[in-house]
This record gives sequence, structure tokens and C-alpha cells, in this order.
Amino acid sequence: MNITFAQYELVYNAFSFAIAVMGAATVFFFLSRSQVSPAYKTALTLTGIVTGVACYHYLRIFASWESAYAVTNGQLSLTGVKFNDAYRYVDWLLTVPLLLIELILVMRLTRAETIAKSTKLGLLAALMIVLGYPGEIAGDSGTRWLWWSLSMIPFTLIVVDLFVGLKSSIATQPASVRNLVSSARLVTVLSWCFYPIVFVFPMIGFTGGSATTAVQIGYTVCDIISKAIFGVLIFNIALRKSEAEHAS
Amino acid sequence: MNITFAQYELVYNAFSFAIAVMGAATVFFFLSRSQVSPAYKTALTLTGIVTGVACYHYLRIFASWESAYAVTNGQLSLTGVKFNDAYRYVDWLLTVPLLLIELILVMRLTRAETIAKSTKLGLLAALMIVLGYPGEIAGDSGTRWLWWSLSMIPFTLIVVDLFVGLKSSIATQPASVRNLVSSARLVTVLSWCFYPIVFVFPMIGFTGGSATTAVQIGYTVCDIISKAIFGVLIFNIALRKSEAEHAS
Repeated sequence: MNITFAQYELVYNAFSFAIAVMGAATVFFFLSRSQVSPAYKTALTLTGIVTGVACYHYLRIFASWESAYAVTNGQLSLTGVKFNDAYRYVDWLLTVPLLLIELILVMRLTRAETIAKSTKLGLLAALMIVLGYPGEIAGDSGTRWLWWSLSMIPFTLIVVDLFVGLKSSIATQPASVRNLVSSARLVTVLSWCFYPIVFVFPMIGFTGGSATTAVQIGYTVCDIISKAIFGVLIFNIALRKSEAEHAS
Repeated sequence: MNITFAQYELVYNAFSFAIAVMGAATVFFFLSRSQVSPAYKTALTLTGIVTGVACYHYLRIFASWESAYAVTNGQLSLTGVKFNDAYRYVDWLLTVPLLLIELILVMRLTRAETIAKSTKLGLLAALMIVLGYPGEIAGDSGTRWLWWSLSMIPFTLIVVDLFVGLKSSIATQPASVRNLVSSARLVTVLSWCFYPIVFVFPMIGFTGGSATTAVQIGYTVCDIISKAIFGVLIFNIALRKSEAEHAS
């Protein structure tokens, strides 16, 4: 029991913030669907589903955090109920493949390319999450390093594919959205790189309340960037492409 | 324990009123989206999201207020659970940048200006809230003054930008909405000025039940003005501009 009351509150409020952001983003994407042309509606549906699923999981994470600690007159104590961090993996297993598919859909490649890329990146993403999970729930560093290394294989393949594989496709996008597509790809890669770093914190000596606080807030910020902010980029790409195609 | 039962009930009812207002406003803005032209739909989506997020946070604030006090036979006692005023900061961190973006979107500036202004004001607003938070949760006046002063820097920059920076843009608006845009800008600036004043109440000697009541009701009234009433102005601007552009 080494987390301070201020740290407890900060994490508590960060989770509450994430619930509000993800809920707001979901409503935004679902309403905005009507503003894009039919070719991009599925991309926006998925964007809203990703943040909606994340909203649901942050409600669960928030409740789990609340039930792990008791606050009496400003004093914090452990209730004995374990904080269930695994909700994050359940969330990622569903949302990470979907948000990669969002990006592919909004690029509007040929049907064959869309199916091939969605299947490949979606499956790699699911594999990456599944391989990370046994490490996350393991106590000892050896086991954590093993699963972390295995999970890094699909992770690296996805990042390389996004950087190299999608690069040539970006050149085929209309000029008005080329920078936005590039940003969306960059936001994905950069925000993703944070996750495996957070994962190794406990294995390289970070412990105690500050580490718990840093990990929880770190994951939360990354989720907001890679789902909600990324989604706003997807919406803008879809809107501009709809306008450009309507005008032409 | 110096709040009276009447004060407790007044705050309780004010929170309930805020839930109803914010919920009603959200439904109103979402339904009204269909009445404006495509250029203004995103502004109305954001307007509804701002009040929707506020509705959610007032539900949380209401529950937190209820759990902080026990009422037995008309007698009030503290339960030991802390009233979490920080929900306000979580709310503002999300809603304040969004409502500035609403105002910018409804003005329909050029795309470059819209992005530049939204980014600048949105980031300044987030910085203002983040800098206020450590002060709000601090007990001593010195710390509160420090963060209040830091938070006032982005606050001042936003107010100056709204007053000076948007002034020239107002001249470019259609005559039928010029006064409304001016009002929206004024409502923002005036309702905002109340927040830093409420913040300093405990540092200048206001304590006890009357101060708590004044702060909670003050913030609630300000939130209703700067989100719901402001939103009605945004809707009217969007509607009139849609009509004017349709006629021309």
C-alpha cells in the first residue's frame, strides 16, 4: 500500500476523463457518419465502435479501481479486491484490429487490397495482444520478458507494414488529404510505441505508487490518442475525400 | 460540518437542475442538427457533445455530493467520503476546448484559419484547466495562488484572442448574425471570468457552508450559461446562416 491519496485521485479522475472522452467521441463519430459519402461510412462506424468499446471498458476499469481501494476520511486502504488491469487486453483484442481496419478503409484502396491488408494487419494485431496477455498477468520478470518478446514480433511486423507498406498507397491519395493520412499513420505508430515501453516498467525496477500512477495514466493517454484523436483524423480524411469526390 | 440542511438541499437541487438542463440541451442540439446546412453540422454535434459530457459529469457530481453527506431525520452528518470537486476539472478539460471550437466552426472561417484558431485556443484552454487542477486540490493558499496565477496566463491569452482576434472576423459575418456572434463571444468571456473569481473564494477568507454553497451554485450557473445558453446562441447563428446561404 504505497500509493498516495493524491495519486489515487489522479488515476481516478484520469479514468473518469477517459470515459467522458470515449463516450463523447462515440457520439461524435456516429453523428458524423451522415456527413460523409457512402464509401466512408463503414470507416466511421468502426471508428465510433472502437471508442464505444473503449468507453465500456473504461467504465469497468473505473469501477475496478474504485473497488480496489477504500477511502475513509481522506485515508486510503486496500480492500483486498485486485484491480483488474486485464480489461485493457480485452479491450485491445477487439479495438486494435478494428482501428487498423479504419485506417485501411478510409484510404479506399482496391477491394482486393482492402481485404488483404485488413486480414493481415487485423490478425497480426490480435496475435500481438494475445501474446502480451500471459506476460501482463505473470509476476516474474522472466515470464514477462518472454511474452513481451513474442508479442513484439507481430508488433514490429505491423509497424513496418504501416510505415513501408502504406507509404506507396499514400502517394495515390488526393493531395488535400495526403498530409492527414500521413498524420494518422504517424499517430498510430507513435502512440503504439508507448505500450511496450509501459509494459517493461515493472521489469526494469519501477515499482510503487508512482509507477502504478505513471502506467495507468500512460496507458490512458495512449488510448485517447490512438482511438479518439486518431478517429478525428479519420473523420477529417473521410470528410475531405467525400467533398473532393463530390466536387469532381 | 458547518453546512446547514437548507444549504445542502439547495446545492443538491441545483445539481439536479443542471442534470436536467444539460440533458435537455443535448437532445435539443442533436435533433436540431438536421435543420442546418452541412457546413454547420459539426458545430452542432460538438455543442450537443459539450452539454452531454456536462450532463454525465453532473450525474457524477450529484452522486458524489449525495455520498458525502448522510441525512437522518432531517439531521445532516458527514459520511467521511470526500466530495470530488475534481469532476469539474475533468469536465472542463474536455468541454472547454470543444466549446471554443464550436464558436470557431460556426463562424466558418477559411479551413486554414479554422485549424489554426481551433488548435491554438483548444490547446490554451486545456493548458488553463491542467494548471488550475493542482491548485484546486491543494489545501494551502500559497499553492492555490501559484497555480491560479499560472492558469491565468492561458486564460488571459484566450480572452484577448476572443476579444481582439475574432473581432475582425465578426465584421466578415452576414449582417443577420453579426450581433449573435458578438453575443456568443461576450457570453463566453463574461461567464468565464466568474470561474477564477470562484477559485479564489477560499483564499480570501470565505469558508464554511455559505462559501461551499456559493461556490457550487456559482460554478453550476456558469456551466449552464457557458454551455447550454451559449449553445442556443450557436444554434441560432447556424440556423440563420444556413437560411441566408440557402437564399443567396
